[in-house]
Order: sequence, then structure tokens, then C-alpha cells
Amino acid sequence: MIPESLFSPASVAVIGSTSPGKLGAVLIQQLLDGGYKGKLAAVNPKGQGYNDVEGYTLLKEIGTPIEAVVIASPASTVPAVLEECGKNGVKTAIIITAGFKEVGNQIGEEKVLSVAKQYGIRIIGPNCAGLCNTAYQYFPTLEVQPPSGSVALISQSGAIAGSVLAGAARMGLGISKFVNYGNGSDLNVTDFLDYFREDDETAVVGVYIESVPDGRAFINALAACCSVKPVLVIKSGRTETGKRATASHTGSMAGADAVYDAVLQQAGAIRVKSVDELLHTCKGFAALGEIKGKRTLIVTNSGGPGVLTADTADELGLKISEPSSEIQNILSEFLPDQCSLRNPIDLTVQGDKEGYQNTVEVAAEEYDAVIAVNITTPYLNADDLARGLIAAKENTGIPVLAHFGPQQFVTSSVKLLEEAGIATFESGEQAAAVLSRMVAYYKNKANLAGRSWPAWKDKGEAAFEPGAVLEPQAVQWLQANDIPVPENRFCMDQASVRKACKEMGYPLVMKVVSPQILHKSEVGGVIMNIQNEKEAKRAFKTIQKRTEDQGFRGVMLYPMFKDAQEVLVGLIHDPHFGPVVVFGLGGIFTEIWKDVVLRVAPLTEEQALEMIHAIRGIKVLQGYRGKVSSDFSAMAELLVKFSKLPFEYSHLAEIDLNPIFVFEKGLMVGDVRIIQS
Amino acid sequence: MIPESLFSPASVAVIGSTSPGKLGAVLIQQLLDGGYKGKLAAVNPKGQGYNDVEGYTLLKEIGTPIEAVVIASPASTVPAVLEECGKNGVKTAIIITAGFKEVGNQIGEEKVLSVAKQYGIRIIGPNCAGLCNTAYQYFPTLEVQPPSGSVALISQSGAIAGSVLAGAARMGLGISKFVNYGNGSDLNVTDFLDYFREDDETAVVGVYIESVPDGRAFINALAACCSVKPVLVIKSGRTETGKRATASHTGSMAGADAVYDAVLQQAGAIRVKSVDELLHTCKGFAALGEIKGKRTLIVTNSGGPGVLTADTADELGLKISEPSSEIQNILSEFLPDQCSLRNPIDLTVQGDKEGYQNTVEVAAEEYDAVIAVNITTPYLNADDLARGLIAAKENTGIPVLAHFGPQQFVTSSVKLLEEAGIATFESGEQAAAVLSRMVAYYKNKANLAGRSWPAWKDKGEAAFEPGAVLEPQAVQWLQANDIPVPENRFCMDQASVRKACKEMGYPLVMKVVSPQILHKSEVGGVIMNIQNEKEAKRAFKTIQKRTEDQGFRGVMLYPMFKDAQEVLVGLIHDPHFGPVVVFGLGGIFTEIWKDVVLRVAPLTEEQALEMIHAIRGIKVLQGYRGKVSSDFSAMAELLVKFSKLPFEYSHLAEIDLNPIFVFEKGLMVGDVRIIQS
Repeated sequence: MIPESLFSPASVAVIGSTSPGKLGAVLIQQLLDGGYKGKLAAVNPKGQGYNDVEGYTLLKEIGTPIEAVVIASPASTVPAVLEECGKNGVKTAIIITAGFKEVGNQIGEEKVLSVAKQYGIRIIGPNCAGLCNTAYQYFPTLEVQPPSGSVALISQSGAIAGSVLAGAARMGLGISKFVNYGNGSDLNVTDFLDYFREDDETAVVGVYIESVPDGRAFINALAACCSVKPVLVIKSGRTETGKRATASHTGSMAGADAVYDAVLQQAGAIRVKSVDELLHTCKGFAALGEIKGKRTLIVTNSGGPGVLTADTADELGLKISEPSSEIQNILSEFLPDQCSLRNPIDLTVQGDKEGYQNTVEVAAEEYDAVIAVNITTPYLNADDLARGLIAAKENTGIPVLAHFGPQQFVTSSVKLLEEAGIATFESGEQAAAVLSRMVAYYKNKANLAGRSWPAWKDKGEAAFEPGAVLEPQAVQWLQANDIPVPENRFCMDQASVRKACKEMGYPLVMKVVSPQILHKSEVGGVIMNIQNEKEAKRAFKTIQKRTEDQGFRGVMLYPMFKDAQEVLVGLIHDPHFGPVVVFGLGGIFTEIWKDVVLRVAPLTEEQALEMIHAIRGIKVLQGYRGKVSSDFSAMAELLVKFSKLPFEYSHLAEIDLNPIFVFEKGLMVGDVRIIQS
Repeated sequence: MIPESLFSPASVAVIGSTSPGKLGAVLIQQLLDGGYKGKLAAVNPKGQGYNDVEGYTLLKEIGTPIEAVVIASPASTVPAVLEECGKNGVKTAIIITAGFKEVGNQIGEEKVLSVAKQYGIRIIGPNCAGLCNTAYQYFPTLEVQPPSGSVALISQSGAIAGSVLAGAARMGLGISKFVNYGNGSDLNVTDFLDYFREDDETAVVGVYIESVPDGRAFINALAACCSVKPVLVIKSGRTETGKRATASHTGSMAGADAVYDAVLQQAGAIRVKSVDELLHTCKGFAALGEIKGKRTLIVTNSGGPGVLTADTADELGLKISEPSSEIQNILSEFLPDQCSLRNPIDLTVQGDKEGYQNTVEVAAEEYDAVIAVNITTPYLNADDLARGLIAAKENTGIPVLAHFGPQQFVTSSVKLLEEAGIATFESGEQAAAVLSRMVAYYKNKANLAGRSWPAWKDKGEAAFEPGAVLEPQAVQWLQANDIPVPENRFCMDQASVRKACKEMGYPLVMKVVSPQILHKSEVGGVIMNIQNEKEAKRAFKTIQKRTEDQGFRGVMLYPMFKDAQEVLVGLIHDPHFGPVVVFGLGGIFTEIWKDVVLRVAPLTEEQALEMIHAIRGIKVLQGYRGKVSSDFSAMAELLVKFSKLPFEYSHLAEIDLNPIFVFEKGLMVGDVRIIQS
């Protein structure tokens, strides 16, 4: 829980020098500029004040209780400063001061945290740029003061927070609160997601993270927040290069990016790549609210920009469907002959107020949103066209996104549009990109409520000795856990091979068993399509000969499967998020196309089905060119069971079920590899 | 050839009403505002002038010869106006007037063109927004007047031209000339590519097209221009939806987008998707000139923005390599301990003029370009940091791209940077995207000289009757054209099957021959793995029985191939570009992954190899997991030979060689389907 004193304290002391140019002076100036109405004091060894704000050498001299402090004194002084805060009843501290974990000073940071804990002070920072609460006129930060509104921002990076706030100020995008938690030694992204989920002044949440301290707590907080309001996330360190940079600059290792992709997808958040995408998408959500579906009408007065918008919209999955013939008939009654009525509806340069208004009003019933792309020239006035759109929006209630341009000639039109609740963008393509993200969020939203992932701790029974697990043992364990494994025999000599063949029939596959061999095929340790006893005998001899100096312990015998689709299911252990399940089509699909999907374990059946359908090559499973469809419910059932295993058995580092043979009905695990840590 | 009077006429008459608000008045005002220094006159039925510009009722009354006219009179008057122009020696006409082909008035447009041809007048338009020549202070256009510089713009759309020019004016991007050719009834994109290739005032060319009238002329002009200077192209109508819009608004069908992708790739142009991308990329080229390679140094004072830049740069193929340990040692001598030296080099908020300057100067020798990402706050001044970068750029000569932000606090720094030849961008990500396009262009440029494609006309011997060609005939034709086909027999009865089997040996494949059957497998018309005479006899009977009511004519016999990689090669006939060759991996690669590459025919061996390597699944051909590599030179040889066939034989509408069996050495065409038009 975040105490009220963090975002709206009744009294604040800024601790640090208030000499000209010093951080203490800058912070007090920011608080004054912002119009903070509570009690404000300066505390520093000289007892210096700043303008009308009085200065003291110690907190207790102030005379009235101080709820919150903003600390900008040197790093070495911070523990003592906090100690004094604790003794004087301070509840929250914003530690701007740098020089802790980020420069290798772990010890200093631990000292700060331990003093804070001792006195029950909640802190943000150290090494942070502060926060703001626009409704409370509270700006304890070094950054630009943005206008008031409904977008909250949580940022691990001060510079990104600064860029977002400056961009918001430029665009007129209203901010409810922002916080940069810097090193996050106490409060971090998870706490703030919980807070903004419940914050009535916040309708949309933007997040910038490089890493999270507790993956499971993060995904749960994120999913809970997404089930109530949209959350947009920039996660940097997407590439190996980017990760190198993140690791070096925050002193925390970033998780594998594919795992973060999975986490954001499962929690229902929208991943964006840049500050610009974040800002514009926040703007769309804040201005328009819910979008009910993807049917999008593009209305324009300019062919070229209309087509570019349609291209982007279509590529991003919006549906640019033609109006019905009934609607086209009505439109043709009042639009000039040369207008295209097929969506984009091109009103041509003759497009006027009535053209825009009537077109949108007539067509609105068949669409979920409108993108208006209007290009003007120095010799045309776009205000009238804006008024037409505004009237149509008010009469029909349809959400409207607009690009009016070029910028030089449409300042007043853009103002009219924005004031009327129409979100404006820098291009039709940008509007289409924002709309596609909004559609995706609202489509998903209903399914998010109640999603949660149990905290993960490596407890319970250890099924195996550490290291690679022998196949007969692994197979038995799968069977015991109700994972479908075909009939099989572990044979250590020719006699048991002969017996097994009699019992199992043909054709058979024989595979070497050895603790030393990871890739059985590569050492000639797999012989397929064994048709009779003679071939089985020869196969055993061959495998034994090939691998006897590589730890040969015997062979496994399995039946051969024909006409099955192969898939793979795996488990990896992510250092931040714990057990993560992998699904893919195996073979070249995995090898060449990297077509795998990751999801944080455990999975529900619904999530498992979603996971299977997230494969790019899904058509392979659905059957193509006359092939039958694979058994989706069997795959989902396997994924659900499999995803629970790491919660029942401890120290499972890695499991591969590959291949799994999937039939029209049912499936069988063809091979298994387990590494116990 | 474009006459000099188009872009720099000594005398101009504006034809059309000069009453307030009329196009004639607007055009004269634009010419006056631009500072046109030649003879200027107004011509209209009333003989009305405009301000100091005198009015006449007829051209011949002006007294001095008029080289160029700008026509804004009603569509119905344009042919007569042009007739008068012709009689008075006018050389070029800019026809702004709309109401021709774009609204279905083909007849009016043909009349205009025929008068123009009769008198040798070259025209742009009708239905165009005009042109400009900034160095000549000549602005016969309705659009914004941009600053002077080295970027030329050719646009099929007036609105896009307007957006680009307004954007250029906003960004301070200098334009040499622009032209919007509207309906392009005479001069079009191809003519202007030829012109700008030779234009000394132009260093970079931006193009917006929806369609081209003569595909082969276009690709040749484009390749010639790209071999001299960079050309950036927006081609709209990328998607089916977009194409619907293009077709309706210009009255011209857009070619398939994949073909345009191939055309732009082969010609060496850079495809961009939006006006924004076009503007920023032009800016990079205009400011920086050649970039020698992809080794990119990122220097920043802000962790977060540095990482986001590194992520994007890495994803786009730039090389964010670490500095050598020698360089890191030198850097560590003067940079504070907490700075990351691994690229991005993070100078942290302590980064100063010397920090930026020394870092770039020390590291420059190991990089081809620098991206500087600097985030400031209201309380820091970035000018000094800019000066450090400028000094380093001047001392080392390395190209520098910079993002300084937020915009509110860096106006003066950006100005310093731009004046010193450092290109500035709105984000580090944008700088990385521009740099990646520049690297791609310059890497390719050396190979572009001399690339050309013969004009394509459907002439020469027709090899087949119209329709689907029977397999025995198709196979013979391939053999005659030196395309490798396996041994084969066409058998119409059991006796010839028996004879063929004896001659060919086993295993064999038998396939039905019928003019009615397109997909042989689907009707059970293919039987594989025939091992002896008895099986062959039975197979013939089976196929005959299955297909006797579907035009059964006999069967083809081929040997079976094992352990071959399958690929496909195809020919399609594009309505704009003529013969286009297709290459792919066949099977699921084509079916599920759409992994095919198109190239305009004919191909050189070099182009064929490039085409094969453009396949996303190239690893399949290179051999993976111990599989051998396929024979690339055999595939290239086949592609080269195949790509010449449509120039030797007429009316080939479609050919599929699928599958082609490729071995470690050599290849064999496994099946062929030819459609003759």
C-alpha cells in the first residue's frame, strides 16, 4: 500500500542545499511553480531558506509535523537524514540523490533501505527524478510540469519520464500523476500498478521498465490493472545489444525479451516500442474510451493520404470493409459523382462540412470507429470540415480519430476537434496504429478479470538427481503424471529386446539410453522402422557398438507413428518469472522460423488454447491441402497438465517433450529430455 | 527530355480567372510571393490583371513570346486554350484544371493530349498541383513554398506533395524542385526520374506513386537514377484495401504490390511507408552523404533512451559493436567510473562537452557513424554538449546523427547541430531507422550501375496452343530449352508402360496426363514408389480408372528422387512489368509462410543468386542439422535460363516448375505446368 503522503502530503520539507543552482533550490522552485498549497520548508546544515520558504537546520525545528521529504543531499548523508526523518514522524521520502546501486554502491543503498524499514518510511529512489500529482498541484520533481488529465506514468528511467512529460506538455496530453522510482529500492512498478488500478483520477497507465524485481508480483499487478483500465508498456532491452546496455546502466539483469512479451500478452497489456507510440496511444485511450470492434471507416478529402491510411490500417488488422449497398446508395444521393464510396470514402477537394457530416452520420451504424484524414492547403480553411465531423460525432456517438494537416494551416481546426473529444494525430497512419492497439485491448479486456499466477517457490518433492535424467526414468515420471506416453520398453540386452518385440509388434523405433548422449540422432543412436526380430537384433548390436564408449546403458523401444503432426512442448526456468512453458511445431519451424510461443506457467485450458493459436504456422495444425486437423483439446490438456509440474516437483530446470505426435484424436509424447538443477 | 521551360521559363502566363479566390489569382500570388523574376502575365476572357501583373484576353496580345503557361481555366476550355498556346509558340503547360480522367472524362483528356502533341507542347497534369524550382524562385503551384536545398520530390498525388512540402518547410528541409504530375497524361514519374538523375541541384530524390504507366521504362529510369543518387519511394496500395482505394481514385489499376517490392529492390531504391519516413530519410541523405558501413556508435547521457535506440538499431541490422579493449581503456581514463563503455556509451547526466567530444574522437576510428542521444531538463543547457559533438565531428569527419530532447529545451542546440552538418531527429529510434536505410542504399549502390531490363513486347514464336499445355509437350519444350528434366516416358497403354519400366529401372513415379486435370494428386492421379513391373501395371490401371472420365490421355513415368531439397520456380505475367520470375521453397514454405521472392525478368546470374538468398528460409538451402547444402549455382543457372524464355516465346501466361529437386550437385525439374494465353 502506498501512503497518501506520497502523492498528496499536507507538509513537505526539501532536504539539501538551496544555494543557487543546487538541486534543493530547483526542487523548491518547482514546488512553488506548481502551486503546492501545503506547508513547505527547507532543511540543510546552513538552515538556508529559498525565497519565501523558510530554512531550518533540523526537521524538528520546523515546529509542525512534516509528512513527506524530498532528499537531495549528498549520498553519504542520506542514511543519517532518513534517521532524523524517522524520529520526526516523516511517512514518505523521495530520494533524488544519486550515487547508490547504479554506481556500484550497494552497501549505501542497503543502509538507506534498512533505516527506512526501521522507521516505516516508504521511499521512492534513490537516484530518481521524483513524481507529480497534477490535481493536487504537487510537483516534487526535476521534470517538466505537464497539464492535468487522466494519464498516469510509471517510469524506471528518469530521462524517459522527462521525455514523456515534455511530450505530453507539447501535445496537451493531460497527466494525472507520474512517478520515476529510479533504483526502486523500496517502492517499484508493482506497487504503482496496484495504486493506479484504484486511482480514480487515472484512466490510462503508461509504463517504462527495463527490469522488474519480482516477476510474479509484477504480472499479477499488471493483469489486475489491465482488467480495469488500459496499461501501455515500453520494455527496453528487446535485443541482445539493448540488454547489454540495460544491464550496465541499472545494475539489474533484464529477463529474456520473449518472456516479457509473454508476460505482457498474458496480463493484457499493450506493448509499445517508443515514447512517441506511448504518448499517442495514451492520447487515443484518454480521449475516446472504449472501441467496440475493428470495423473502421476512413473518410478523406485526399486520395493519396487516404490510401496510405488504408494500407496501414489493413496491415494492422483493422477491417476497412465497404459500406453496404444500401448505405452506398444513400451516400450517392448527396456526394458528387467522382467520390469513391467504397471506403476510404474520398470526398475529394470538394469535401465540405455537410459532406463530412452527412457521410459519417449515414455510415456510422456499420462501423466501430472513424478515421478522418483531411489535407488542406494555405488557401482552404479546414475549420468548417472539423465542425462537420464534430456534429457527426455528437449526433452518432461514434469514436472519431482525425489527422488534419499540414500542421501549419490547421491549428484552429485541431483545437476545435480536440475540444470536442476527437483525438487528432500527426498522420492517418498514426491514427490507424493507435486505433488498432485500442481495438486489441478492448477485445481482450473481458477475459482479463481474475487472471493470476501463483507465487513461485522451488519447493516440494525433487523427482530426480541433479543433471540430465535418463530416458526410462523420465518416461516413467511422465506416465505417473498422466502425460500420454506410448507403450515402451527399456531393454539392456538382446533377450529383453526379443521379448519386447514379441509383446509390442512392429514397426518399432529403437533409441540409445545413455547419460552422456544429449542428441541421440547425431551419434547414430536412433534406428527407425524396425520391421521384424532380425532387424531389431541387428539394430541393438549397431547402437551398442556405436555408443559403447559413450555410456551405453541399453535402448528404449517405441512403436512407430505415421501421419501424425509433430509439435514440441518445453519448460524453461526464467530467473525473474520462474517456470515458463514453450510451445512450437518443432523441426524446421522452430529451427528456421523461430516459431515458438512462451507463456508463464501454470496455464488454464483457455490460455493453453490461446497459446497454440498464437503460433504463426497455425495452419499446419488446422490441416491444409486435405490434411486432417490436429487434436487441439488434447494439446491444450497436455499443456495444462505439463504447466503444473514445476509447482509439484522442485528443481526442474528444463524439460523438452519433442517430438509430440499429435493425431486427429489424441497425442503421444515421442521423446523427452529433462534437466534437473 | 524535359524542356528547360518547364522548371525555369523566361516568361509565364497564368490562364484563368484572376477574380478574388479564383485559382488564377492564387497562382499569380504564389508566383509573386516566390519572387519569380521572369516576365509574368495573366490571360482570361475579361483581360483581368492581378496586382501589378497585366491582364490580356489572348496570348498574342502580350507582345513578347511566352515560354510556359499555367492553366486554371475550366476543363471544357483547356483544348482550345492549348491550341492558342501552340499557335503562339508556348513550349510547356502546367494544367492545374481538374475534371478529366479522374472523373471519367477520358475523352476530354485525350483531346488535351492530342492538341499538345500536335504543337509539341509538353504538359504536366491535368489535375495537378504544379511544381516548383526553388533556386529559380519559381513556384507555379498551390502548395507551400519550401526552403531551398538538394531534395527533389516527384509525386503522383497533390495532397501528398502538399504534406511533404509543408513538412519540409516545418523541418527546414531544403527542396531543389518538386513536381506533382496529377493524371500524368504526358510527362510522368519516369521522365522526372531521368531529369533529376542529371539535375546538379538535386542530391536526393523522393517519389510518391500509386501506379506507373510503363513498368519497364519506370524500372530502367529508377535504376539509372539510383546508381547516381539515392531515391526513396512511397508506393501506396500495399494492401488489397489500399489498392481498392487507389484504383478508384486515380482511374488506374495498381500492380500487385509484391511486384513493386521486387522492382524497387532490383532498381536499388529505398521503399518507405509514410511521408514522415520519407522526410526524415531525405534529411539524413541530404545532410550526411555517404555512410561507409553499419558499425554504429551510440553515445548518450541517458540510459533509457540509449537502450531504446540500441534496440531499434539492432533490430534494423545496424552493428552496435563494443569498442575494442584498447579504446575502452582510453575511454576509462577520462570518463567517470559509472559510465558504461560497451556501446551505448552512457556518459550519464554528468556528460559534458569534453565527455562527448573526447568519446567520439577516441572511438571514431572503429565506427562508420555515430548516433548521439541527449536528454536534457529545464535546468540543464545542452548547447555545450552540442558543441562537443560538433568539434568531434569536425575533427574526425565521422557522420553524426543526433536526437536532442525534449524539444522545448533544445531549440538552440538543434540549430547549432544542424548548421554544423549534424542531422537531428525526433528520437534515437528515428535516427537509427534513417541510418539503417542509408547504410542499405550505399552498400548496394556500387552494384546498380548498368542495370537495365529490356523493353518487353509479346513477340516471337508461340510455342503452344492457348490454354493449359499437356505435360509431355511441356517437358519436351523444357528439354529443348536446356532446362534439366529427368529421364521420362509418355505411355498411352500397358505395353509402352512395360517397355518404359524395362528401360528406366525402379523406383518410379507415375502421373496422369489429361488436359482437364490441374491438380493431379487431388484426383489420385499420382502413384509414387513403384518398385516392379507388376506394381507399374496395377498403377496404370488404377490411374486410368480414376481419371477416364476426366480426359485421361496416358501417364508420364519419372524416376524417384531421394534426399533432394525441393524448390519452386515460376513465371507470372504482370500487366505493368511483363514477365516476373518467382522463386520459393515450395510446400508449406510457400503455402503457410508465403516465403517467395519475385524479380522482374530477365535475371543475370548475380541477380539470381541474390534472389535465392532473399528467401527467408535460406537456411533450409544452406543445409542445417547436418544436411548438405543445395547446389546454388545450379539453381542460379536455371533461374537465368528460365527468366529468358518469355523473351523468346510469346504468350506464356504462367509457368510453374514445382517441385524442382535440388541436390548437392545439380537439380531436376519434377513437374511442370504451363498456361499459354
